[in-house]
Amino acid sequence: MSVGHGVRELGVICFAVLLCSSEASAQEQQPGLSLMPWPASVQTGSGSLRIDSSFSVALSGHSEARLDRAVQRFLRQLTRETGLQLSAKTSSKATLTIHTDHGNKEIQELGEDESYTLEIGAEGAKIDAATPLGSMHGLQTFLQLVEVSPDGFAAPAVKIQDKPRFPWRGMMIDVSRHFIPLEILRRNLDGMEAVKMNVFHWHLSENQGFRVESKKFPKLHTLGSDGLYYTQDEIRDLIAYVRDRGIRVVPEFDMPGHSTAWFVGHPELASGPGPYEIERKWGVFDPAMDPTNEKTYKFLDEFVGEMTKLFPDHYFHIGGDEVNGKQWDANAKIQEFKKSHGLKDNEALQAYFSQRLQKIVTKHGKAVVGWDEVLIPGVPKDIVIQSWRGQASLAKAAAQGYHGILSNGYYLDLGWPVARHYAVDPMSGAAANLTPEQQHLILGGESCMWTEYVNPENIDSRIWPRNAAIAERLWSPQNVTDAASMYTRLHSVGTELEWLGLTHRTYYPQMLRRIAGPNASPEELAVLRTLADVVEPVKDYTREATASAEPTSATPLNRLVDAVPLESETARRFGQLVDRFVTSSCHDADAEARLRAQLTAWRDNDAKLQLLVRRSFLVKEVAASSQDLSALGGVGLAALDFIHKGGAAPDDWKTQQLAAIEQIKQPKTQLLLMPAPAVQRLVEAVARGGSCSASKP
Amino acid sequence: MSVGHGVRELGVICFAVLLCSSEASAQEQQPGLSLMPWPASVQTGSGSLRIDSSFSVALSGHSEARLDRAVQRFLRQLTRETGLQLSAKTSSKATLTIHTDHGNKEIQELGEDESYTLEIGAEGAKIDAATPLGSMHGLQTFLQLVEVSPDGFAAPAVKIQDKPRFPWRGMMIDVSRHFIPLEILRRNLDGMEAVKMNVFHWHLSENQGFRVESKKFPKLHTLGSDGLYYTQDEIRDLIAYVRDRGIRVVPEFDMPGHSTAWFVGHPELASGPGPYEIERKWGVFDPAMDPTNEKTYKFLDEFVGEMTKLFPDHYFHIGGDEVNGKQWDANAKIQEFKKSHGLKDNEALQAYFSQRLQKIVTKHGKAVVGWDEVLIPGVPKDIVIQSWRGQASLAKAAAQGYHGILSNGYYLDLGWPVARHYAVDPMSGAAANLTPEQQHLILGGESCMWTEYVNPENIDSRIWPRNAAIAERLWSPQNVTDAASMYTRLHSVGTELEWLGLTHRTYYPQMLRRIAGPNASPEELAVLRTLADVVEPVKDYTREATASAEPTSATPLNRLVDAVPLESETARRFGQLVDRFVTSSCHDADAEARLRAQLTAWRDNDAKLQLLVRRSFLVKEVAASSQDLSALGGVGLAALDFIHKGGAAPDDWKTQQLAAIEQIKQPKTQLLLMPAPAVQRLVEAVARGGSCSASKP
Repeated sequence: MSVGHGVRELGVICFAVLLCSSEASAQEQQPGLSLMPWPASVQTGSGSLRIDSSFSVALSGHSEARLDRAVQRFLRQLTRETGLQLSAKTSSKATLTIHTDHGNKEIQELGEDESYTLEIGAEGAKIDAATPLGSMHGLQTFLQLVEVSPDGFAAPAVKIQDKPRFPWRGMMIDVSRHFIPLEILRRNLDGMEAVKMNVFHWHLSENQGFRVESKKFPKLHTLGSDGLYYTQDEIRDLIAYVRDRGIRVVPEFDMPGHSTAWFVGHPELASGPGPYEIERKWGVFDPAMDPTNEKTYKFLDEFVGEMTKLFPDHYFHIGGDEVNGKQWDANAKIQEFKKSHGLKDNEALQAYFSQRLQKIVTKHGKAVVGWDEVLIPGVPKDIVIQSWRGQASLAKAAAQGYHGILSNGYYLDLGWPVARHYAVDPMSGAAANLTPEQQHLILGGESCMWTEYVNPENIDSRIWPRNAAIAERLWSPQNVTDAASMYTRLHSVGTELEWLGLTHRTYYPQMLRRIAGPNASPEELAVLRTLADVVEPVKDYTREATASAEPTSATPLNRLVDAVPLESETARRFGQLVDRFVTSSCHDADAEARLRAQLTAWRDNDAKLQLLVRRSFLVKEVAASSQDLSALGGVGLAALDFIHKGGAAPDDWKTQQLAAIEQIKQPKTQLLLMPAPAVQRLVEAVARGGSCSASKP
Repeated sequence: MSVGHGVRELGVICFAVLLCSSEASAQEQQPGLSLMPWPASVQTGSGSLRIDSSFSVALSGHSEARLDRAVQRFLRQLTRETGLQLSAKTSSKATLTIHTDHGNKEIQELGEDESYTLEIGAEGAKIDAATPLGSMHGLQTFLQLVEVSPDGFAAPAVKIQDKPRFPWRGMMIDVSRHFIPLEILRRNLDGMEAVKMNVFHWHLSENQGFRVESKKFPKLHTLGSDGLYYTQDEIRDLIAYVRDRGIRVVPEFDMPGHSTAWFVGHPELASGPGPYEIERKWGVFDPAMDPTNEKTYKFLDEFVGEMTKLFPDHYFHIGGDEVNGKQWDANAKIQEFKKSHGLKDNEALQAYFSQRLQKIVTKHGKAVVGWDEVLIPGVPKDIVIQSWRGQASLAKAAAQGYHGILSNGYYLDLGWPVARHYAVDPMSGAAANLTPEQQHLILGGESCMWTEYVNPENIDSRIWPRNAAIAERLWSPQNVTDAASMYTRLHSVGTELEWLGLTHRTYYPQMLRRIAGPNASPEELAVLRTLADVVEPVKDYTREATASAEPTSATPLNRLVDAVPLESETARRFGQLVDRFVTSSCHDADAEARLRAQLTAWRDNDAKLQLLVRRSFLVKEVAASSQDLSALGGVGLAALDFIHKGGAAPDDWKTQQLAAIEQIKQPKTQLLLMPAPAVQRLVEAVARGGSCSASKP
């Protein structure tokens, strides 16, 4: 390949070099580029653009204050990434020029043009976009390209043409179960901008809290929030903040269930007699709005009227999920209403409520978003179904002509490995069989951060960098699916997100220090960390089931299960190393040495943890996991010894070890010991005799 | 010792147990208490007060909103320390009751009563104080006592009677050389409150920046600050913030030197012709105010009038240090003035200026603070001398009847080991020979954070937790001097400070990730960390001298020298281990094994760093230090081998190794390799033959 540097002439960057087109699973060919989401098209050149204190930016074409602020924000983030002091002054001879063709809608709409091109050469860089949304995406891509080089900071020569696969790429944050202050929302919205997500779905009301100031019905927030709510001024500020980042805000008021907190101030809305208190527990509860009372609709008309003025987005989320119907069944008046209106069951009653509510929302000029349950015959076609149930439900809606977005598979609170979220595609499963027109109705998806076990302290770690993989699924071409590349790039994106002020890394040692106590020595903390690094919280909805006492919103989230990341990087890498070792016929001396070092450290860790076990109740409660880790280390070492000597183990040895590992796999104090399956594979490799029979080469 | 629990009756906590009085070097007897500064008197009981979600606080006696806010702040910090959700509601049956006798002065004054008692028993805790200042100190002491126990969070039974040794316990922050935003000042002021410092000395003007909005002379801040200044509203907010924390604000406007930034907008004040630009370099510069021009005093009268209204404290700092006199010598008019006024030299001219300025400050109702230079014959007795020159200068002032505070020995930017700051006592040296009345004139001291190489990113790490040791020197009894105890407690205080939002720990891995590049793997980062953990920036004022290019305020602070802590904990502990090993006649097998592991890791580290050396210019520049560390590991291992075998080494081996270590001790890219002296002691132990002759037991 010839070597050349891009030269910049008359505002055009010319690549004098071979451009490598790589539209398919491009990231596999370019491990050096830490882009996430991966762009639609990446062509690499050679050479790079040096980034030093003289770096500057110039805007041309369409002009608006939002673009100027985006450039200031870009320069601040570039300063953090590099430590360089960059001048905010722009000049006509800028290092990076940005041309924007025209403005966006006054209120951001679904499906606006977000495309951009970014060209970087040795002499300069250029972003071209139809609208500010595209220009801002281009700036984020540029930030991800900045790397440290042998000669200074630099961005590699590259030509990127990019646009999103789906127009609706969102994240929902539940601020009701645990209140999340604005400052924390803001940094998470910065994170969304960095990974090109464009919808913030704000889950604002729940059994556990009503979080918005209502001037019409102030008892909603004064009695329903423990004082933890956002004022309307704060909400307007946040909406402006979010618009600056190319993100829409879709508010959700969950009705007719999930609404206990409304009833504390307004029991007349409920189907049961009350009185009501803010719910402190987790789960699905009985209270539901009374769908048979005209006063309910009068109230909701006024309330929706107030909220649709506050939230400018065209979409308004009415929730609609998980009504258990018990209050309806227990209310004779409601039963009578069902009979007199020919509503055969509670589903039909909810459909009646939904229709009435949708009319109200439509009257106020908005389109409805709702969870799967709101899809009922006759509902208007401009509704968007958010599917927590799955792709089949989404495909069914599309087949009927309804728009949909996928959230099933993107629940961040379930603690899945990132790769599992990453493998979920809105267009797979039943959706793959839809006609192109029907597929077009699938608008994208949303990750969901439900906050039963998430508070301001650990929320960043539950969202980031994991959410970036979901953002990539919704932005990048469908064939960008390589998990290994994703994990590599996720690590880099995690560093970038840290510079935005997200605390997804820093919270962890800090919480461990709390668990160990302020007096714990650095050595003691290292021992606790060895254990913490290989456990994960139990998955899916098993945390309540495994709790020693029923958790509530007052339960402290200060335990190891609250502190550890949702995915153990150490265990993931250990598993890869075991696989490499056993698939290479167990002759890999380097892998064996590394496995032995790791297993030895685990085996010896429990003894070192004992001082802390005796001192701290938060360490004491995980003593069993620590013992299991030591046992696991011992089993793994024994397996390695058998493999190393090339002999087969006695039959009963294998049986005993596998039984022990099964026991170790059981959750303890809501923790899973993640290296257990890999050690199991080691033990199984012993038994395979032939393939692992040779001694060390 | 009998075991009993304190019982609380009628608001009085009765200790049914032996109370161990320990007023001397008490902390040595109570390693479990992480108090810093160590109180005047500590008596421990047995048992402890359980701290759970039911914890509550009640106030009695004198009432003011500041105390309520202090309690809210206390509960927030307790929540962070424990993860418990604490109610802000107070009750008459509170866990912690606080009785405050009477209020403080409306504007906090030097020498107000700050004493308090704190009693903790199994059933409750009680703070008694004369004033809110004492009550707030008591709350901080309580926070430091909270520990994790086998049964939950707890505070040990204890009776503390406490008051400060010195009434002036300050920290100066230079916000001129690098601007420090308010948000960062605020968290550092929280840190000062935690360690009971009570004066924030705000160094607001310098050659490199004028940082206060002046409504009378707006060219001062608009032309002298690059737009980086505090508005008067922001300053009033900060003063209120600081008063809430029992801290006074002493503003400093450094005159007649250190004042280039003033002259950008007001060249008529200067002694040279100008024009002037904001200074970008470090050092002592020529520009100085014209002390012979009546317009200078007219200007200063108006300016001081404005600023003394803005800053309510009784003291007003006029700087006065380091005038080199070159502009005065070069100005014929000034030379003539000296002659006509009988001023024999520039010192006399500066004295003339100081007298005039002091009269202005006095006229506006304030007392002057100044650096050593302002102490001139005839100056009024209410002046306070801040000594950067040393204890002798301070003692000389006191002998003449002047108040003084010590800063020499407390310059945080010099990179000293904490123990060295800790050993500096305002009453030692010449001051020890003063009469009691003269000693009484020594009011305390101030740590100083000069910011040539300090910016918002690393400032917390340059101040904390180090500053807590200086705070202890100024608060605790003079005989509290044990450095080992100090280091142990400093580690705990460091954790407490982290919960206040200080970034003195979190900045470090983040800066290392920048140095290594976002693509660096966790393993590569660990290798870089191994090197980073054992280097320190060069000490004192050698950084300019060792720079490859003259540093300026635009120089990025993104190098390893900017990232590493000022004191290597790893090297300090390694040195202790070497000392333990060689003083125990080299038979300590455990110490030997640990030394061997550490030395081996160092020896092997450089090879692992090579990938990063090739990739990042910021790693490449420290390649020599990395090679030195490997060499040092090798030398140490060889020494251990000789010792282990019990044989003496050949004479030339020792000579060669010591010469190599001398070379390794030389600073490289402004870094010192801290384990070098300890390895030298190991090598020297080999030569001692006899004392290290035995083989492993």
